[in-house]
Formats: sequence, C-alpha cells, structure tokens
Amino acid sequence: MIHTERPGPTLRLTTEEHAGADARTREDRVAAEEPLEIRLAWPGAPARRVWVTMRTPGHDFELSAGWLVHEGLAAPGSLHSVAYCTDEDLTAQQEFNVVTVTLDREPARDVGHRHAAASSGSSACGVCGKDSVEEALTTPRAERWAGPSPDAVVVRALPDRLRSSQPVFDETGGVHACGLATADGELLVVREDVGRHNAVDKVTGARVLAAHSPAEAVLVVSGRAGFELVQKAVSAGVGSLVAVGAPTSLAVGLAREAGLGLWGFTRADRTVRYA
Amino acid sequence: MIHTERPGPTLRLTTEEHAGADARTREDRVAAEEPLEIRLAWPGAPARRVWVTMRTPGHDFELSAGWLVHEGLAAPGSLHSVAYCTDEDLTAQQEFNVVTVTLDREPARDVGHRHAAASSGSSACGVCGKDSVEEALTTPRAERWAGPSPDAVVVRALPDRLRSSQPVFDETGGVHACGLATADGELLVVREDVGRHNAVDKVTGARVLAAHSPAEAVLVVSGRAGFELVQKAVSAGVGSLVAVGAPTSLAVGLAREAGLGLWGFTRADRTVRYA
Repeated sequence: MIHTERPGPTLRLTTEEHAGADARTREDRVAAEEPLEIRLAWPGAPARRVWVTMRTPGHDFELSAGWLVHEGLAAPGSLHSVAYCTDEDLTAQQEFNVVTVTLDREPARDVGHRHAAASSGSSACGVCGKDSVEEALTTPRAERWAGPSPDAVVVRALPDRLRSSQPVFDETGGVHACGLATADGELLVVREDVGRHNAVDKVTGARVLAAHSPAEAVLVVSGRAGFELVQKAVSAGVGSLVAVGAPTSLAVGLAREAGLGLWGFTRADRTVRYA
Repeated sequence: MIHTERPGPTLRLTTEEHAGADARTREDRVAAEEPLEIRLAWPGAPARRVWVTMRTPGHDFELSAGWLVHEGLAAPGSLHSVAYCTDEDLTAQQEFNVVTVTLDREPARDVGHRHAAASSGSSACGVCGKDSVEEALTTPRAERWAGPSPDAVVVRALPDRLRSSQPVFDETGGVHACGLATADGELLVVREDVGRHNAVDKVTGARVLAAHSPAEAVLVVSGRAGFELVQKAVSAGVGSLVAVGAPTSLAVGLAREAGLGLWGFTRADRTVRYA
C-alpha cells in the first residue's frame, strides 16, 4: 500500500503510458496526499479536534496556523506553539498527521461555529437549516489591506511567476499553488498542495509563523476563484485575489461587498477584473 | 448582492477585460454557486442535517441522493422521497437550498460517522485522533462492476466526449464535469458543477433516481483524481475512473487495493494507467 509509508511531497511509482498504438511501462511521480487532523488548545482547555483535511505533507504547521486564522479561530498574534501530536496510541503513519496548535488566549470565535453545522444528528428539520446556510456564507473579517493595489500589467505577470516557483508541480503536474505578492508583483511566499484551499492556508500560515501580517497586496492562485478562496482572502485581509481560472457568482458577490479586488482568467496577455 | 437572487447555473455580470494596453467593459457569465444543506430522515427519525456544501444550483436532488450513496448512508434502492424543505422560517433564498432525503429504512451506517469526526469540541487530545485519521481513509464498498473494461482507445476518447457535453462550461469556463460511460465509451449521463466532487455526486444520483445501478464501466472527470474522487468511484462500484488531470499517491493506493482501473493525464493522443 502506497499510503502506509511516510511520504515526501511526491512519490515514485510504476505506470503504463498509452500513446497512439504504443504502450510502455515507465516510472512516474505523483503528488503525495495524506489526512491531517488539526487540534486546537488554549490555557485551561484541553486540545480538541477542529478539522480533518486531505493535504500534501509538508508545511503542516503553516497549514494548521493558516487554516485557523482563515476560520477566525486564531488571531495572527495569538499563537503560543504548534507541534505534532505525540499520543502514544498513534501509529507511525499517524504521528505526523496530527498537529496541535496552542493559543495564548481563548479563541475570539466559538470553535464549534462551522463544524458543528456540518455535523450530523444535532438538529431536527426546521431548527437549524437557516443557521447552517447562513453560517456557510459568514466570513471572518480582517482589517483590509490599505496599501497600493497591483495594476493590470502586474496582475497579468503573476501566474507565470507563480508557475516558475512550483517544484512539486514540475515533478507531478498534480498540485495547485498559491503565492503572496507585493503590489509590484514580488512574490513573498509560494506554497503547493493537492488541495487549492490548503495551498492558501499554507501561505497565510507561513506569514503568521514568521511574525508577518497575512494582509498583503495580492494573493495569486493557480486554479479557479470559488467562494471559499475569496473567503480566505477576505479573512486574511489581502487587497486583491488573482486567479488563473474562473470565479463563481458567490465569489464575485463577496469580493464586491468586501472591497477585495478579484481578477480571473489571468494569463500573460489577458485578465478579467470582476471586482 | 449577486447571491440574493435565485440563480440558474450561470449569472450575467459586468466585468473589465484587460488585454495588452487595452481595457474594456463587457458582459460576462459566471457559474452560480450557492450553499446546499442535505437532511436525512427515515421511519421514526426526524430529518437531521448531514452535510452542507457549496454547489452550482440544479440537479439538487441528484446531488443529495448521490452524496448519500457515496457516503454509504443510503443504499441505491432505499430512497423513499427527495424534496426541498418547506420550513416556514426559511427565506426565499434558503428554500431551494435545503433538500430532505427520506429513506424507507434506517441507514446501514451511523450518520455521525464522518461528520462528527470533523466537528469540534467532541474529543480531548489522544482519544480520537486515531479514529478521525482512520475514518478519513475509510471507503464504503459497493459490489464491483463485473462487466467489460474500456481499452486505452476508448479511454483516450472520453475527455473530448465529456467536453462536448458541457453547456455551463461553454458559457463560463468555470465548472467541472463528470460523466458515466459504457465500456464502449457511450456517455449515459453528464453533470456539471463548480465543485468536482459535486459533479460526481450528481452523476451517481441521476442513475439512482432513475432506478439504475450507479455501478457502470467507467466514470470520467474533467479534473484531477484525488483520493476523495477515487473513494466515490469505489463506493459507487464503477469499474474504472478516467481523469484529465493527475492522480495523487493516496488515490493510486486506494484504486490498486480496491481493484479500480485508474487513468490520468488523459487526452486524445495519450493516457497513463496508474492502477
């Protein structure tokens, strides 16, 4: 079984390539994917599970910290420690798949806010539907980036710059990337993951763990701009989101309402501004 | 606000296109995205929320039924009814965003299985980490497709056939698609959604609601083949999964273990068989 070994960001395996009438066996590399459990603790509160996600191993502390910031569960300055869990009952496979984040204070937001909404057995029909659909649309707000915005020339250059900083994609062709850049287009940090949301979490986490604000001029993503990516951009406080792919209706709606610049279908010769 | 109207699968809005030094205002269409809450009921049990997902409105009953089948919560023959919820406290926006599926029997699997694992506040460190990481890897198994498998020639033709059956993509460039096909490459059903997982749920739901088995020769998807897509293919009982994009390590591992054919990087002139 491939997933019983502790992988790096890529794994080598044997495949068959079929081109025209030819078939040949060859070696291939695929992006690693493993489940990660994030636990949250603060003074007087034992660590509790708040999320389980599939992700490409690596930068797990950043992923955990960034996810908590995007969810409004951790203020950027409130992180006390981030560590792999050392429970004795975890197997070798599991011990690098559970991260505990300890805050120096109680979270500003109820840790059950979103995840209880997705859990079952808690509500009879008619009681909570309104809450859960509203909850899915609720976005934690950070102070908005007040610095300069990138112009269309900088925006159009960003996807190629991001692409040239993707070692795992180069090997596998199978991961998304996210980068944080200045208004002049200088990339400050780039992260890759099989999940495009995870790549954004890792970028925000990288900034936070380096004691920088996650709010910067522009976030660039290799895929589309769905609602949840716009939520992450708004909750991190960035000024603009640049996507290689298309936005959705709800993404455009939130961006316009929150004052986030939103660019889609972006490549070297063309981009479309939606908000 | 764009998302306060009840959308079809696409919405029209005004954008700015920047190409070279030119900028012009134009009309554009984007794929609609809205939250959907799925509720589950059975004789003697009131409807309870089991999932909330962002999706492209349309085929909501199929999405709900297919998701439940993939999760192992509903056997294909156990659906009694599927309906929009008519709670009086739902707003106009919400009333088409809550679907209740009623089974004719109790679910075979505990409805709390996966979603309780993702919910917070329920476990102290060391008790449930093992469970949740294991749980994320657990895949409900259906009886495997015992009919013929597509050969590489059929496989390579599938992405173009799928692409020619995507009206929402034609308008927006922003949705994924999934199709179910025979071993000869005949497409039986195609569905689109902003979420690639949702598109697979809709296909399985379409088959189930039409009283067909979801188990067929081959499922083709417009994106990559991550672990969760392979889980859905295995839990529906299909014979092979064909992806336009790359697979992940865990996806290959599960496919090999479950006996699912897995093809990636598939286009007219080339495909790679991973399992």
